[in-house]
Amino acid sequence: MTFPSRLHDRIRATNSRVCLGIDPRPEAHPLTHPDRFVNDPAQLAKAVVHYFRAIIEATEDLVACYKPQAAFFEALGIPGLIALAQLLADIRSRGVPVLLDAKRGDIGSTAEAYARAYLTDSVFSADALTVNPYLGMNSLEPFITQSVHNDRGIFVLVKTSNPGNADFQELQTANGAAMYERVAERVAETAAANLQGESYSAVGAVAGATLPADTLAALRRRMPHSILLLPGYGAQGGTLHAAAEAFDSEGLGAVVSASRSLTYTSKSEDFAAQARAATLSMKDALNRNLEQ
Amino acid sequence: MTFPSRLHDRIRATNSRVCLGIDPRPEAHPLTHPDRFVNDPAQLAKAVVHYFRAIIEATEDLVACYKPQAAFFEALGIPGLIALAQLLADIRSRGVPVLLDAKRGDIGSTAEAYARAYLTDSVFSADALTVNPYLGMNSLEPFITQSVHNDRGIFVLVKTSNPGNADFQELQTANGAAMYERVAERVAETAAANLQGESYSAVGAVAGATLPADTLAALRRRMPHSILLLPGYGAQGGTLHAAAEAFDSEGLGAVVSASRSLTYTSKSEDFAAQARAATLSMKDALNRNLEQ
Repeated sequence: MTFPSRLHDRIRATNSRVCLGIDPRPEAHPLTHPDRFVNDPAQLAKAVVHYFRAIIEATEDLVACYKPQAAFFEALGIPGLIALAQLLADIRSRGVPVLLDAKRGDIGSTAEAYARAYLTDSVFSADALTVNPYLGMNSLEPFITQSVHNDRGIFVLVKTSNPGNADFQELQTANGAAMYERVAERVAETAAANLQGESYSAVGAVAGATLPADTLAALRRRMPHSILLLPGYGAQGGTLHAAAEAFDSEGLGAVVSASRSLTYTSKSEDFAAQARAATLSMKDALNRNLEQ
Repeated sequence: MTFPSRLHDRIRATNSRVCLGIDPRPEAHPLTHPDRFVNDPAQLAKAVVHYFRAIIEATEDLVACYKPQAAFFEALGIPGLIALAQLLADIRSRGVPVLLDAKRGDIGSTAEAYARAYLTDSVFSADALTVNPYLGMNSLEPFITQSVHNDRGIFVLVKTSNPGNADFQELQTANGAAMYERVAERVAETAAANLQGESYSAVGAVAGATLPADTLAALRRRMPHSILLLPGYGAQGGTLHAAAEAFDSEGLGAVVSASRSLTYTSKSEDFAAQARAATLSMKDALNRNLEQ
């Protein structure tokens, strides 16, 4: 089954559009605080796995998907990458889609190597990968090929959630459109060319949950065949009112991600129960906004 | 000593402007061919380390720096990443600058995590890292902070070596400049703001060796304080005649990288000697072009 179909089935089954972000920030929680593991980074990585496995168990029925952020695992070195492999395998074995947020992007055979690393039955196998378009649409082809072949997906960065995104993404181009609108246009073409007989393509897009409602509505219209991944809700200040604009009329076609605001709400042993409460609250609030 | 000073000292000491690219493509050489290691990926990674250590030993006096490509190591899974850590440490222990080509780019605390992973005394410690500017100049700040603090550097993708780069990098913007020229302008400002009392900054740029000579000359003028990393020579078709335009009047301020054309020229046990011959030939040809 294609990645868009798997994700949509999951959204229907859970009635959840929440993408729970897995950002191991060991310094953010006493149970994983680096001071406890100063002489043993491998134990720190084990503590990180333990922490997020507890959160996954507590939230599995409330989320559309999980999104580990590669950077935080890479910062923990080899044990961190073993932890990433373990969590990816754990989530996939539960049948829950997992999007690896790694923002990869390179050319030719190098892009092929990244696609092999993350979108095949590898040790870092994910259901989908975030990718950066700066090197051109052709640089995304190896990722699309593996996605179509192996029922995976990509999310192309179109308009990101950070205030500084405007530097280049909002540059006006000669035809009057902003840079990110030109990227959106090319993503839309590529998605339309890779539909595999369904209404959504393996070629998705990233659009910050911090964007104004009308921008998100325009991106939804501009990329009708792309699932939108909306990061930036919660700690970064995005609102669910605006995020609701990114969904189609059936409440599909998008997921909203949050990380810190779901996974680091408690400093004590009840962290998983608190993550569940925060996830449930976000799930319901998002659905209420969709009904309006 | 700052990264630009270390790199320039090295260019003067070796009279070499060659950056030797380390792209483990196991299928490209009988000694590392996956068929030999089908039941043991860890042995494959060991063979890759053995292969490139032999090449490093054979070329050390002929290169300005080495450039491992992260994608090929990531595609080999955990053993591949251990191999990357080993090769990075090996090259740094020889006092040779090593640039990790990973094209990372993310925002806020995620960018900080990547900078911590690659530009501190971590297991993946490199002298410099390639980064992607699509998320805005602010997204590069954590990389610049670590570079200035730890004598490391970054190379910002400005104009890449692939034919498809034009999709977005050559889009005309409203003021008449192409997108990549706007990026170059911002890189130049940021480099000027981070000079640390020297003439070159830790903020460098990537410009494809496949670009026309006049484009490289213009990028050299536009970014006078940035060391240019020129990939795409050799297998991708760049010429040394054009590449010579990327250097300043003292023959500094740039390095030209080649990977496959240096490291996979022989299918037999003489691969390291052949790599030495190819590297020497490229070093001399580049210097001859600089003298013209």
